[in-house]
Amino acid sequence: MQNNYFNCELNLKNSSKIVLTGDRPTGPLHLGHYIGSLTNRLKLQDSISEPNIIYIMIADTQALTDNFTTPQKIVDNVYEVAKDYISIGINPELSTIFIQSQVSEISELCMYYMNLVTIGRLERNPTVKNEIIQKKFNESVPAGFFCYPISQAADITAFKGEIIPVGEDQLPIIEQTNEIIRKFNRIYNTNCLVECTPYISKTPRLIGINGKAKASKSLNNAIFLNDNSEIVYKKVYSMYTDPDHLKIGDSGKIEGNVVFTYLDAFHQNQEEIQELKKHYQRGGLGDTTIKSILYKTLESILGPIREKRNNINNQEIKEILFYGTQKARLKARQTLNEVIEAMGLKYFS
Amino acid sequence: MQNNYFNCELNLKNSSKIVLTGDRPTGPLHLGHYIGSLTNRLKLQDSISEPNIIYIMIADTQALTDNFTTPQKIVDNVYEVAKDYISIGINPELSTIFIQSQVSEISELCMYYMNLVTIGRLERNPTVKNEIIQKKFNESVPAGFFCYPISQAADITAFKGEIIPVGEDQLPIIEQTNEIIRKFNRIYNTNCLVECTPYISKTPRLIGINGKAKASKSLNNAIFLNDNSEIVYKKVYSMYTDPDHLKIGDSGKIEGNVVFTYLDAFHQNQEEIQELKKHYQRGGLGDTTIKSILYKTLESILGPIREKRNNINNQEIKEILFYGTQKARLKARQTLNEVIEAMGLKYFS
Repeated sequence: MQNNYFNCELNLKNSSKIVLTGDRPTGPLHLGHYIGSLTNRLKLQDSISEPNIIYIMIADTQALTDNFTTPQKIVDNVYEVAKDYISIGINPELSTIFIQSQVSEISELCMYYMNLVTIGRLERNPTVKNEIIQKKFNESVPAGFFCYPISQAADITAFKGEIIPVGEDQLPIIEQTNEIIRKFNRIYNTNCLVECTPYISKTPRLIGINGKAKASKSLNNAIFLNDNSEIVYKKVYSMYTDPDHLKIGDSGKIEGNVVFTYLDAFHQNQEEIQELKKHYQRGGLGDTTIKSILYKTLESILGPIREKRNNINNQEIKEILFYGTQKARLKARQTLNEVIEAMGLKYFS
Repeated sequence: MQNNYFNCELNLKNSSKIVLTGDRPTGPLHLGHYIGSLTNRLKLQDSISEPNIIYIMIADTQALTDNFTTPQKIVDNVYEVAKDYISIGINPELSTIFIQSQVSEISELCMYYMNLVTIGRLERNPTVKNEIIQKKFNESVPAGFFCYPISQAADITAFKGEIIPVGEDQLPIIEQTNEIIRKFNRIYNTNCLVECTPYISKTPRLIGINGKAKASKSLNNAIFLNDNSEIVYKKVYSMYTDPDHLKIGDSGKIEGNVVFTYLDAFHQNQEEIQELKKHYQRGGLGDTTIKSILYKTLESILGPIREKRNNINNQEIKEILFYGTQKARLKARQTLNEVIEAMGLKYFS
């Protein structure tokens, strides 16, 4: 499995494979999401051969596993994230956007899968292990968080997801899902569950504007898709560059210079950026100039997103979520029925 | 809490408190269940002031946590147990009999409660600890089994169960349930979940016919409610008595003599039994005689149960289960709605 990651560029043209992807609604989406996963979803949406094969899950239940004391934050961000999706061009007719908690079939699948995974196996899951340390749970790991790889297996299999876009750090979760799938199919002598393949984004995680860590809401170092132009301006002009580049005439460093990292990621004309880099290195190019170029670059992306965002009202978002969730439930219900049938748990016809 | 167990005899006359009880469908019910819990349910059914307050759950999902490789056995026993209930006189108009797995709301509640319990807390649960040893899971404890106290909290709260008949060994599960209830109500600033009180049966667990351990299906030492009279006869006549009581004239021991234990438990006239005991102790009373008395005693109970059982067809049982499960779902859906509202997770009205 490790050498067999699905290559999006290569094989997704006219693919009819089912894709499951999504986000934890713990904050609005930012440029890191945009470059890391959202643009890929748009490409996917353009390349698929039929509708109803892309499922985009807003994972509120999963977000609650480590945010259970602040459910209002999660609910608010469900709507924000949905708005972000529509603003960047996700088309709800082509991609099914749904709310995880509203698909009860996922919880039911999870209950059955919990019998197929031992506590020891969960303890050895490297992703969970790392996150328990990162999130400083210490000895107080909630059972819901500890078991979330099982819940993710339920998410994926509910929709018979075949291609799962993930970060490198999430690979053990996919491995765990496929273990559950194989075990279920073997024990219940069925092939109703379908193994999935991780699709790893080749884009490295976007650095935060302070240059210290990956962009994230919690570190307050990200540019959000819903930031207004004034805030974007402030954030760009506060970006970490080269602290030794004091005078315009000085030669400046590119490595670790966040402005150039963002220009690499977002500017359309990479030749122009190469020229700028050379100029900056030999001296004579001020930080204000490169920041002004970056600001315009980002605004050329964020401007239209912002405009689209302003034109969607909350009622429309609710309707999109309702419609998508209904569609998702139909698919999940179908899978749950097959799972129940395979286990022989059909009591009433 | 420890000194505050609900006393059935004292307080359940005209009670309107909700009772949740049930069985794991891992085998047909036997005389141990009859004397330990089933007769209490009949008493309850007679004493309640209104219908729809007794919920009897056939816990198939829970039974699967340690029987997940043999779901057919569980499904078969769901019907057998339901037949047992009706045969002994449970009235589905007064007591709601339902199948756990068919109430998806329980799974949903479980997912939310899993966030409120830490892995460390589950590890310290004495009931689970003991059962893990008894069931010889060693290092391979399924997550479903490990988390079953959370799932039981979901069972109980789904119906707002106030009185939970349990064995002494199950008290930590009730404690855990009340912990979850208090934590939920505190975090989400609600009182929608209701604390429950264990009701401990005063009847000691019935010994098996071999006198070695409690009567149970797995030890093959129980008399089942669906045993025919020939089998009951064989089982009674193979019962462990006093191995030193070789001749009728010998004096015999009462302690450890299974026939007398059963006569104590099931014979209507305890004065008569006291006389028999004295006679047996001073000598002159043969094992065949006391076994014959016990056989008649058991048949006077099992005969009518057997007759009722023969008059129920499978279709009727299915209808009773369907009807009860629909009723149970309505109640559970109401509770789930309140839980979701308290957490603020209502997306669509």
